[in-house]
Amino acid sequence: MQQRIGVGLIGTGYMGKCHALAWNSVRPVFGDGPKPRLVHLAEVDANIAARRADEFGFERSTGDWRQLIADPEVEVVSITTPNAFHADMAVAALEAGKHVWCEKPMAVTLDDAERMEAAAWASGKVAVLGYNYIQGPMVRLIGDLLAAGRIGRVNHVRLEMDEDFMADPGAPFGLKSLAESGYGAIDDFGVHPLSLLQVLLGPVRRVMAHLSKPYAERPVQSGGRRAVETHDVASILFEMDNEVSGVMALSRTAWGRKGRIALQIFGSAGTIVFDQERFNEVQIYEAGEGATAGFRTVLAGPQHPPYDRFIPAPGHGLGFNDLKIIECHELLRAIRGEPARVIDFTTGLAIERTVHAMAQSHRESRWVEV
Amino acid sequence: MQQRIGVGLIGTGYMGKCHALAWNSVRPVFGDGPKPRLVHLAEVDANIAARRADEFGFERSTGDWRQLIADPEVEVVSITTPNAFHADMAVAALEAGKHVWCEKPMAVTLDDAERMEAAAWASGKVAVLGYNYIQGPMVRLIGDLLAAGRIGRVNHVRLEMDEDFMADPGAPFGLKSLAESGYGAIDDFGVHPLSLLQVLLGPVRRVMAHLSKPYAERPVQSGGRRAVETHDVASILFEMDNEVSGVMALSRTAWGRKGRIALQIFGSAGTIVFDQERFNEVQIYEAGEGATAGFRTVLAGPQHPPYDRFIPAPGHGLGFNDLKIIECHELLRAIRGEPARVIDFTTGLAIERTVHAMAQSHRESRWVEV
Amino acid sequence: MQQRIGVGLIGTGYMGKCHALAWNSVRPVFGDGPKPRLVHLAEVDANIAARRADEFGFERSTGDWRQLIADPEVEVVSITTPNAFHADMAVAALEAGKHVWCEKPMAVTLDDAERMEAAAWASGKVAVLGYNYIQGPMVRLIGDLLAAGRIGRVNHVRLEMDEDFMADPGAPFGLKSLAESGYGAIDDFGVHPLSLLQVLLGPVRRVMAHLSKPYAERPVQSGGRRAVETHDVASILFEMDNEVSGVMALSRTAWGRKGRIALQIFGSAGTIVFDQERFNEVQIYEAGEGATAGFRTVLAGPQHPPYDRFIPAPGHGLGFNDLKIIECHELLRAIRGEPARVIDFTTGLAIERTVHAMAQSHRESRWVEV
Amino acid sequence: MQQRIGVGLIGTGYMGKCHALAWNSVRPVFGDGPKPRLVHLAEVDANIAARRADEFGFERSTGDWRQLIADPEVEVVSITTPNAFHADMAVAALEAGKHVWCEKPMAVTLDDAERMEAAAWASGKVAVLGYNYIQGPMVRLIGDLLAAGRIGRVNHVRLEMDEDFMADPGAPFGLKSLAESGYGAIDDFGVHPLSLLQVLLGPVRRVMAHLSKPYAERPVQSGGRRAVETHDVASILFEMDNEVSGVMALSRTAWGRKGRIALQIFGSAGTIVFDQERFNEVQIYEAGEGATAGFRTVLAGPQHPPYDRFIPAPGHGLGFNDLKIIECHELLRAIRGEPARVIDFTTGLAIERTVHAMAQSHRESRWVEV
Repeated sequence: MQQRIGVGLIGTGYMGKCHALAWNSVRPVFGDGPKPRLVHLAEVDANIAARRADEFGFERSTGDWRQLIADPEVEVVSITTPNAFHADMAVAALEAGKHVWCEKPMAVTLDDAERMEAAAWASGKVAVLGYNYIQGPMVRLIGDLLAAGRIGRVNHVRLEMDEDFMADPGAPFGLKSLAESGYGAIDDFGVHPLSLLQVLLGPVRRVMAHLSKPYAERPVQSGGRRAVETHDVASILFEMDNEVSGVMALSRTAWGRKGRIALQIFGSAGTIVFDQERFNEVQIYEAGEGATAGFRTVLAGPQHPPYDRFIPAPGHGLGFNDLKIIECHELLRAIRGEPARVIDFTTGLAIERTVHAMAQSHRESRWVEV
Repeated sequence: MQQRIGVGLIGTGYMGKCHALAWNSVRPVFGDGPKPRLVHLAEVDANIAARRADEFGFERSTGDWRQLIADPEVEVVSITTPNAFHADMAVAALEAGKHVWCEKPMAVTLDDAERMEAAAWASGKVAVLGYNYIQGPMVRLIGDLLAAGRIGRVNHVRLEMDEDFMADPGAPFGLKSLAESGYGAIDDFGVHPLSLLQVLLGPVRRVMAHLSKPYAERPVQSGGRRAVETHDVASILFEMDNEVSGVMALSRTAWGRKGRIALQIFGSAGTIVFDQERFNEVQIYEAGEGATAGFRTVLAGPQHPPYDRFIPAPGHGLGFNDLKIIECHELLRAIRGEPARVIDFTTGLAIERTVHAMAQSHRESRWVEV
Repeated sequence: MQQRIGVGLIGTGYMGKCHALAWNSVRPVFGDGPKPRLVHLAEVDANIAARRADEFGFERSTGDWRQLIADPEVEVVSITTPNAFHADMAVAALEAGKHVWCEKPMAVTLDDAERMEAAAWASGKVAVLGYNYIQGPMVRLIGDLLAAGRIGRVNHVRLEMDEDFMADPGAPFGLKSLAESGYGAIDDFGVHPLSLLQVLLGPVRRVMAHLSKPYAERPVQSGGRRAVETHDVASILFEMDNEVSGVMALSRTAWGRKGRIALQIFGSAGTIVFDQERFNEVQIYEAGEGATAGFRTVLAGPQHPPYDRFIPAPGHGLGFNDLKIIECHELLRAIRGEPARVIDFTTGLAIERTVHAMAQSHRESRWVEV
Repeated sequence: MQQRIGVGLIGTGYMGKCHALAWNSVRPVFGDGPKPRLVHLAEVDANIAARRADEFGFERSTGDWRQLIADPEVEVVSITTPNAFHADMAVAALEAGKHVWCEKPMAVTLDDAERMEAAAWASGKVAVLGYNYIQGPMVRLIGDLLAAGRIGRVNHVRLEMDEDFMADPGAPFGLKSLAESGYGAIDDFGVHPLSLLQVLLGPVRRVMAHLSKPYAERPVQSGGRRAVETHDVASILFEMDNEVSGVMALSRTAWGRKGRIALQIFGSAGTIVFDQERFNEVQIYEAGEGATAGFRTVLAGPQHPPYDRFIPAPGHGLGFNDLKIIECHELLRAIRGEPARVIDFTTGLAIERTVHAMAQSHRESRWVEV
């Protein structure tokens, strides 16, 4: 009687496990929609695939992702492999008539991203990207407040995204320092604040970027040192369609920052401040409150959907993995044809174009239109 | 080939859903232990039971909890009903040879709590209480730091637990204002900070309590007003076995506090500060750091087990429901006979005795030994 | 043409310098009132007295405080000597027809405090105590908010005062560990939160105190160890006249706390939170703000008098010494017969009685009426 | 016997009063150096000049600043008039053989600033600018930490300066919206973060600026609206000599920000974070602290000179006006030929050149070398 949906998952690393958890929890949390049936799990190593399938609750597993895509019982495919594989997998899945849930960023090259977006259009299937930070209840609240004009007309925005996993200059040269992994901070990180910008305030019109290498070289495990090819730090000026000016700073070498995505939105009647490291909180300042004006620290609670689906009491806190459950629920809504809060491949492509414009701006030392 | 464990769940409210989520996620998160098989779900209304069983992934359901306990495939029973029902259900489950996972507080009366504890001893089964706050990675870190002597010998402790769900004086008279629901803040709330004290610093030796009623009366839905029988606010002095003095303040009428459990531990070489509203953080001050001495705000990360089982990257944040997943995992460890971080019925009874000592202290206006 | 007032200052330590700074700045800051003429400065060592008089801008100096009191040009006497000297000096000054500005606490013994208060009444002169923390603009704002009913009817209060200058167990035995210095935390510190309570919410009616010694002994400089006679830590329950319950915690051994005086005031319509370590801020939560309810962090500015007398721009911050300038201005207002925000000897005596009631409560292990 | 120094003060507004307070307090606070003799005060309106002279403690007053400069008893001149007057006054004072203490920014035009700097060189007198934020004890601590390599080699810096006095779009068109007042945020505000950069990390090498007008027009008091000529918001990329990249954001229309000057300095071994709104604190993160790594919040205390000259106890807090007292003391040190922490006219000119380079960069939409 109840509807079910067959799920395939490719990849079982950080994000693979995160998707698996979401697929397990989405129905107990939300209590609606089709019941996910965890059908097929793919991982390069077939043994690991089998073990993870058992842990994650998948019915079968494979060492060959094409088998998963060929599985007729799989209706939606989670892609959580390294970025360079996204395009081939997503395109294959879409061509096989599956919905696709692909981790961000879309792809390393703009060509690949364009190919993915074209395949999505051609397939008529739902194809969304794993931009989980847009799903937080407080990010939704920010969107609601902006829409309601609570801080008036926005005129200036500041974004920062910082972590410190590349901050140690003595850490060995790795994949992320290779040009083939991408540009560095702007694609590895920049896409996240860009996804927030997109959802909250719309597209970026032009950018002026400055990329830098805090450490010109890194030690190679086998001895010696190797020149770093990517830029761990980026500073960007930008303009948006709606006359909003902005500044963005990104760093993978920011000691002490662990998951910071800081947002400051200034409007004609107030200011909103947010930091993903405390994503169950948002700060809002509203003009006109006299002697008791101040930034109000709002704690997430059931009045901030969909927090209420997780916990009925306020201030108890959602976790990072919960954001993925919300995202999974939005994906299911999109599949059912309902309005959904997702970044589809078309919007995702716009984000990619912004990143490539940043890279071009840095190379040519000038403003570049997106 | 793999081991399974049959789960029964009684109650589908706030905590019932929380247990269901934990049972669904514990294996994908931890990847070890027996695979929970969600066998039987009980709820007063059989229709709701059926619907929730479908949502939560249970195989069958019932409107009669005794059927669930009689189910031979159920090996462990989650009890998440109102406190007054805990004793009968827990005792029945234990007598039927099931392990029991019962929400806190144990029971409304000390008699009931003692009956539960005796049943646990008699059964030889695992019987633990749902004190989830002891499971947070930063609470574990606090324990590790104390054990390592990082703040020296502890001499003074302050605890606060505050929410505001009873803060509105215009909110109608409800169950929590009736004496039959218990004393008020000390049992509804006090058990949580007591569970933290117990785990981190040991048992309370004697207490001096002052209970108060911020609102002597509350409006009755049908008109008129009714005298409040419970104490929404409590202030307590206490001494611990190890010469530690302390103060505890509890309020269900603390406007603006949503899930605050604040802890300050002072030692001869430093101080630790924690607040559950930001439970992915802890603050530590260590003596002897010269001109840069200060409280360090530590963000939870994979170096703070079992955070790493949820997310490999630091600073991304666990959620309240994740604490229950950890608790579920500890329960499974206890069932397997492994050392586990749980509050069993014996320790739970000690906490209950402390609460009843507080009530007595208030009545008799004197220090009471626990 | 302009009115002048002759000032005498006894003591040139921490508070002596603080008074000297206030006397130098009060007129440039406020631009009103009599012009202080710094006439006479007394210090035990006449040479130091002369040097400080030169630095602080006093006309003459003495090694004998009685000479200062005998000086006909001195109209008001600042007393900043150790507590044990307050009574003799204040009584002598009052009997000589001088106004008195005496540092807190009033005296070590209740007898002395009573003697001082009687002398004040007999003299008809202005006699106020140096409770500077009541002068902060945000403490005034709290008073205004309470008076305006912004958080409704207050029902519960928590106070903490903590510093760490006695926190090192290896620090040598000193004056503050001797019984002749007083009780310990309750008189050394407790008077400050009591002054805030008094000004904001009125007098304390009864207390239940528990005092403790984190370190039973301290090393003596000459070798060996000596039993500590005072209590560095105190935990107190209290009730106020207006049915407000409260809890107070005090520590001179709280590592990491440098000047913390934390205040939480809970009312039927909101909550106010303050910490002296960030005394240019106050937090207020007001019920009824819907999805954006939260604690508002208000920064001191010119809308919070008398901040505007110091700086016309908001958020720039007053300092600790500025509080003394405000206090000096209030003293001058009192001398001119204007309504003034001061703690006079009568109110100061009530605070002393509360401290002694705490000590008695601890000794007798029972509630004591003030 | 003791040395005195004759002081003249031009201007009695916000900064005039601040200078007056500093001249009154510098000796009582520091207890060394020459004793300032407050000789002459000038203000456009002679009556106001007389009144303020009385309040501030100056011996005589004038409505004509040239008389003050001609006064042979004046040895050092404080200039606190609107920026457009700085050049004429400073040059006249220097030519008359006086030392000069001039408020920031130097001047509206680069020509004027150059003229001032030339006059300083020609005079051989001390000429310093009122960059008070460099004087905070925590800013000094930052400098010490950087010098000691505590965060390794700096590679990236972020600066923000925000206030909200222009944030109301309904506020009438005023002087600060006129082109003759300067560029807007970059000179009105930008000079402050630039002064911190200069003192902590050295000069800026090149800039890429984007200026914007949040409100294109403002209402005119007499009716109608007028086009705004200055830029209230600025976003700037910059590079420093030492391979440090940076980003700076400035806003006079940032609702809720009152005196924010936020600084984030990222190095190869740690991070330092500072905000002027809480200038008695600094945050430092140091790599290599394991499971308890975190940002340490350091409270200003006597271990952070010259805090100890104001208050012997830590955590009690300096105020904004205290920074000016420190600055005054540094000026006196410079006059005595001692090493001093000041921004002299030469360094000030470098800051001005940076601001003008920003304006040019915006106009020409390209990177500009300073």
